[in-house]
Amino acid sequence: MPPCPTATDLLLLSYHSDIMIQCPRGTRDFLPDEMERRRYYENVLRNVAKIFNFRETATPIFEETELFVMRSGPNILNEIYAFKDKGGRDIALRPEMTAPAIRMFVNEMSNEPRPLKLFYFGQCFRYERPQSGRYREFFQFGAELIGNANAETDAEVIALAASMIKALGLKEYKIRIGHIGILRNMITSAGVPSDKLPEVLQKLDKKMYDDARTLLERMNISGDAADNIFKITETVGGKEVLDLVSNEEAAYLRELAGVLEAMGVDDIEIDLGVVRGLDYYTGIVFEAEAPSLGAEKQICGGGSYSLSELFGGEKVFSTGFAIGFDRILLAMEKEGQKFEGRGVDAYVVPVTDDVRLDASKIVSMLRSEGISADIDIMRRKMAKSMKHASAVNAKYAVIVGRNELNENSVTVRDMGTGDQKMIKLNELVSLLR
Amino acid sequence: MPPCPTATDLLLLSYHSDIMIQCPRGTRDFLPDEMERRRYYENVLRNVAKIFNFRETATPIFEETELFVMRSGPNILNEIYAFKDKGGRDIALRPEMTAPAIRMFVNEMSNEPRPLKLFYFGQCFRYERPQSGRYREFFQFGAELIGNANAETDAEVIALAASMIKALGLKEYKIRIGHIGILRNMITSAGVPSDKLPEVLQKLDKKMYDDARTLLERMNISGDAADNIFKITETVGGKEVLDLVSNEEAAYLRELAGVLEAMGVDDIEIDLGVVRGLDYYTGIVFEAEAPSLGAEKQICGGGSYSLSELFGGEKVFSTGFAIGFDRILLAMEKEGQKFEGRGVDAYVVPVTDDVRLDASKIVSMLRSEGISADIDIMRRKMAKSMKHASAVNAKYAVIVGRNELNENSVTVRDMGTGDQKMIKLNELVSLLR
Repeated sequence: MPPCPTATDLLLLSYHSDIMIQCPRGTRDFLPDEMERRRYYENVLRNVAKIFNFRETATPIFEETELFVMRSGPNILNEIYAFKDKGGRDIALRPEMTAPAIRMFVNEMSNEPRPLKLFYFGQCFRYERPQSGRYREFFQFGAELIGNANAETDAEVIALAASMIKALGLKEYKIRIGHIGILRNMITSAGVPSDKLPEVLQKLDKKMYDDARTLLERMNISGDAADNIFKITETVGGKEVLDLVSNEEAAYLRELAGVLEAMGVDDIEIDLGVVRGLDYYTGIVFEAEAPSLGAEKQICGGGSYSLSELFGGEKVFSTGFAIGFDRILLAMEKEGQKFEGRGVDAYVVPVTDDVRLDASKIVSMLRSEGISADIDIMRRKMAKSMKHASAVNAKYAVIVGRNELNENSVTVRDMGTGDQKMIKLNELVSLLR
Repeated sequence: MPPCPTATDLLLLSYHSDIMIQCPRGTRDFLPDEMERRRYYENVLRNVAKIFNFRETATPIFEETELFVMRSGPNILNEIYAFKDKGGRDIALRPEMTAPAIRMFVNEMSNEPRPLKLFYFGQCFRYERPQSGRYREFFQFGAELIGNANAETDAEVIALAASMIKALGLKEYKIRIGHIGILRNMITSAGVPSDKLPEVLQKLDKKMYDDARTLLERMNISGDAADNIFKITETVGGKEVLDLVSNEEAAYLRELAGVLEAMGVDDIEIDLGVVRGLDYYTGIVFEAEAPSLGAEKQICGGGSYSLSELFGGEKVFSTGFAIGFDRILLAMEKEGQKFEGRGVDAYVVPVTDDVRLDASKIVSMLRSEGISADIDIMRRKMAKSMKHASAVNAKYAVIVGRNELNENSVTVRDMGTGDQKMIKLNELVSLLR
């Protein structure tokens, strides 16, 4: 028989099962080390966007539910956080940020000089089963170029996505560019009536070739034509694969590849078989994946589309993409990419209680010079304070003692090497900088 | 009689009333200029926090509703976005970030070396009537020092708040520090039973002195004692006002003022009459206000408290504050503080269509050197492109023409002065940098 639980056991048990509130399923807390890493890479992405002269915007965390239904269809309701507010309005936590960005464009930016080059970063929400790389609260970086659809506008957006992925330092990834018109065009040219097109595309998207063949046979499409379609569906490669197809869409992709080449974007492949779930894509589509992630390997997806007219604006062609920030960070981690936090420049240690106010003066002086500095405020003895200086990853400890102060000096210890020396207070800033 | 509406009028009308979805009431879109300003000041605050060795954390946008009820009481339910998720869980958009931060501490950081110095920035949500400086989605910057309550820990937090407000460049503001024990102590010393204390404090908080007097008379408190209490309630000033009270709390405030003085924090006042709505404050409380904001003038509020034991953790003293980011930006605006956006370093203009690929190469070369650069991708004629270069606030236009290219050169125009000159491509980066 196990021993009876002690009062403490019971207390701990009750803490863990009853009292302690956790963050909601599928959401996360970000502790300091992880958060520093996230902000660092968020700013890497932001800086690349700025260098491309994309400008940041932000929209609310929730929108009228209808907005997302208009973009994605009513099935979206099954996987979003939708609810009524106290005023009876139907609102939903945003599952994506393209619809809000285009709503903002229609509402407030439709008279701005074009193209509009916008980016944004923030949380999105989906009610789905949490798993590796999939969260209910997840972070996306997105960009939209609003105003035209030509090889240069599409190239600008793809080059931005490629530069961002590269800037993060991810090594293993693939960017595939296709055109939703290529397969569609081939299939209708083979004789498939346009109302049957979605069904055929769906089978191809899921690589269900036997089903697709049966479907095509029933429409009297020849076996050769079917084989040809299946071959194109599986064709991925360099610019040369475009020679397999001769239509307007292939010519467009060739032009686009030329612009990307001029821009030095050399890490792309052409995917002739690309199919996208959403109806609103109008031309090129592209996606990036990191093989290290296994099943959930897509890190970026985008394309050119037209959405503004759905929201009551004029029809304007746009090209955009979203990067899954959580997932790309996971891929970097899987590749063994390490992030080193900055730590703090100086940790000020008062040797005795009677110099605490002097130590406070010194820490404030350092801070006012832009040097990150911390100080013992737990009234610890010196040995414990030095231990805390290590815990907060300080580069230097600034040891403040009465005798040294009488000579306007402090002792500085290099926490890396352990070297220490006495220096004048007026030399402290330049030493620590 | 007004003229009949035209078809366009009707169309516009229907856009604005029926089709066009707006962002939900009390929320905002942030367009590029405003967003650049917000990110700039967000980073000013973040950098000050880092210099103080506070470290950033983040918690989810929503939490179990119970968390906020535990901290603020059931009345909070009347003003938050609370709903059930698809799994039937009661969740709520966070109305504040102290409860989530302390929950995170209890769940995941209770074994970390103390003090923990944490900060965070993000959206909070309250369902209330929108008005100037009050939104349903609003932004807060917050900090918590977890681990102790002494003059140094409290001073560290107040110094951080004061440094942040100063770093933003706000000119007119007041920081008032008080101690919730001072008035309580006086009132109970005067003979008010402790169960009547909240009622008396409430009247004083609302400056309803006549009601308070009636209340005190009913408890046989002398008119002199009442007058004395009212006088203290209204007393704000320098350290010297502490001489009016002789108790432990006043002694503590005196010690705190001494540490703040050593730290160079010179923009504070002592407020003997401070009362706070929330029960969990345990010692000092402070707030900052910007008079330019009128009725909604509070820009920062905080104090020392103990909350972790409510969430199933051990009792740990903490001191923290929140800054209303929207409101402090509004105050800066009212003071006439201007923010200048950075614009883009270079705008590349292809003179003719046959040099577009060369122009793409040049823009990419600039970007790879870290120079922010944009390019005409709308296939505009040169004059229109130059106009767009102004519209995007470019410092230089880089004009790419066939003849110049043949000499490995481009023409650079300073968009500020209008000066332009031809330079070699290999000198372009150093000119623009």
